[in-house]
Amino acid sequence: MTLPSYPVVRLKPKANARAIRHGFPWVYANELVTDRRTKALKPGTIAVLEDDARQPIGLVAVNPNSKIFCRMLERDLNVAVDEAWLIEKLRTALELRERLYDAPFYRLIHAEADGLPGVVVDRFGDTLVVQPNAAWADVLLEPMVDALERLTGARNIVMNGSGRARGLEGLTEETKVMRGAVDAPIPVEMNGATYIADVMGGQKTGLFYDQRPNHAFAARLAEGAQMLDVFSHVGGFGLAALAAGATHATCIDGSASALDLAEQGAVAMGMGDKLTTRKGDAFDTMTALKDEGAQFDLIVCDPPAFAPSKPSLEAGLRAYERVARLATPLVKPGGYLVLCSCSHAAEMSKFRGACVRGIGRAGGTAQLLHTGYAGADHPQMPQLAESGYLKALFFRLMP
Amino acid sequence: MTLPSYPVVRLKPKANARAIRHGFPWVYANELVTDRRTKALKPGTIAVLEDDARQPIGLVAVNPNSKIFCRMLERDLNVAVDEAWLIEKLRTALELRERLYDAPFYRLIHAEADGLPGVVVDRFGDTLVVQPNAAWADVLLEPMVDALERLTGARNIVMNGSGRARGLEGLTEETKVMRGAVDAPIPVEMNGATYIADVMGGQKTGLFYDQRPNHAFAARLAEGAQMLDVFSHVGGFGLAALAAGATHATCIDGSASALDLAEQGAVAMGMGDKLTTRKGDAFDTMTALKDEGAQFDLIVCDPPAFAPSKPSLEAGLRAYERVARLATPLVKPGGYLVLCSCSHAAEMSKFRGACVRGIGRAGGTAQLLHTGYAGADHPQMPQLAESGYLKALFFRLMP
Repeated sequence: MTLPSYPVVRLKPKANARAIRHGFPWVYANELVTDRRTKALKPGTIAVLEDDARQPIGLVAVNPNSKIFCRMLERDLNVAVDEAWLIEKLRTALELRERLYDAPFYRLIHAEADGLPGVVVDRFGDTLVVQPNAAWADVLLEPMVDALERLTGARNIVMNGSGRARGLEGLTEETKVMRGAVDAPIPVEMNGATYIADVMGGQKTGLFYDQRPNHAFAARLAEGAQMLDVFSHVGGFGLAALAAGATHATCIDGSASALDLAEQGAVAMGMGDKLTTRKGDAFDTMTALKDEGAQFDLIVCDPPAFAPSKPSLEAGLRAYERVARLATPLVKPGGYLVLCSCSHAAEMSKFRGACVRGIGRAGGTAQLLHTGYAGADHPQMPQLAESGYLKALFFRLMP
Repeated sequence: MTLPSYPVVRLKPKANARAIRHGFPWVYANELVTDRRTKALKPGTIAVLEDDARQPIGLVAVNPNSKIFCRMLERDLNVAVDEAWLIEKLRTALELRERLYDAPFYRLIHAEADGLPGVVVDRFGDTLVVQPNAAWADVLLEPMVDALERLTGARNIVMNGSGRARGLEGLTEETKVMRGAVDAPIPVEMNGATYIADVMGGQKTGLFYDQRPNHAFAARLAEGAQMLDVFSHVGGFGLAALAAGATHATCIDGSASALDLAEQGAVAMGMGDKLTTRKGDAFDTMTALKDEGAQFDLIVCDPPAFAPSKPSLEAGLRAYERVARLATPLVKPGGYLVLCSCSHAAEMSKFRGACVRGIGRAGGTAQLLHTGYAGADHPQMPQLAESGYLKALFFRLMP
């Protein structure tokens, strides 16, 4: 019934229709017959995707301004993509998070894997931060915000349109409050620590929920420890370690405002005296700490993405190796070293290799205790390797 | 001082001395100059390993009856391999476990990664089960048991010499009580559940500690669930789910004695009425359940190693795919499916691919929520891919 109203886009014979039928959610521009009519489609238009034999595959959102020309929305052509559809996707996603977490602080929508391509929604109690990083979500933003409000009862909803992802889609940067008001950073309880999330001015949506299980594992190694949190952002690992009984945490970051939020978190935990912050370049600061003869029981390095895409892979792996090499001599014998990567392009075996080389070049020998990924509120689409970006390796340096 | 007393074994020029210097712990028979003198070395002899230029690399344990001719014991040639050396390795390992766990139930020694090649020690309170799966450990078994007794204060120590690993080393199968006495299965508290470990008669050392974090993650999905534990052994996942609020668990296994232990565990938890066991072939039983129209909120399949070695890889992957295909229709829409592999040869991407194919062929679409490995009391040697055998994939089947 709704079918005739959608325009049609068609795969070239060379396109991998089979992979798309088996769940791959994207069609690249070079896989599509892009005639004048197709190129003229408004970004965010919903269309029927057909294979080269004109057999329909599903409903897609198209964006002629993106390398990802089509994103699969719905494989059942008899289903309308409307507010009821949005509500159903959100309800399914919410059910998982409510099962996993005691309190409403989590990533509620993780894009493709939650059936809403390009859309990220983080929840901070009764405040939601929406990142509509695909054109269709920009077009349907109002009904999406309505649906989020209805389903979660959230009072404040922020649209965060900053970041690299929107640029790749040809979308403008814009951040605005769409419901309610956000007057101050929001305290978030996680793993016994208190984080201060600046949802209006911080990086991404203000807090990295993805590291939650890795914070928790590091906390198990923290009792009685002097710990060092390198690339600390708002103190994700440092504050979790203090909550778990670390005697002291030192946070290194290049951002004064992030370190300020880390300090506010420690103060909120009544542990302001146990946190030291050092603003500066992480490589330089680790070198300086070595010269000072400093050593720690537990070190966590969670750098920004050194290898965000394939061309930067080799340089990125060298940077990860260097982090490991500089951190290793700062770990006391028998102590723990946690190395993280949030680079799509650095797959696990390559990242692990870089870490082990760095440890080895610094003269260390290590056990690998634990391999962690993003938390379960960041589900992966099994067909989309890119959605498994976050990796955390927990090493023990043998005495 | 101790150096002159050791025999010498030497690498062929073609051997990868660099990998061994960088941490790889094994020398295969075909990498070694095996003259008559070398072949005559008694299994378990400690020797100095030299490269082809006669530069010493470290102290190794040799076994002419094994494909793994040398296992690296100590890279520092000035260190004697004696009881003090054993104590130091055990102390380092114990320190980690005492940090990680509140109670003395864990794998205390995990072979190469804990610096004691081929040696496995599981701890059940004041009972230890030792698996000396390498010739050197057989030779040094008495001092090792002495050291274990001294360090842990354990009263009962069992030597479990069963299993495939000893056969590959040319060692005989033998199980004996070396200290104290073991009269009955031992109750083990883990993730809130009570397991009954038969350390004298069970599989491996009587209980699989390696799945502990995966039991814990499955438990987070279990509240209010009807759950199915396929290849349940003594009820690892089923009892953890019951402890976390599952309304009912059905355990399927081919071993009546394992199912009996699962029932004993449920009774010890006061939940005997919530557990059903079905003895039989897992594939047949899943097919029968489908015919019965049975569906579950949570299903876990933890089969034996279908691909224990490279020649069995393809058949093994087909078996994993079949498990996924048979389990998928038994999961309620929106429910959870956990698929495990303990096969060395099936590396993660291949195992995940088999699972996703199986789910897809059964008509399912899944999110991947979580990827789990063996617990941190089973550390890995980063240089030894084989030590990362256990994988658990947590899927949600989208409604």
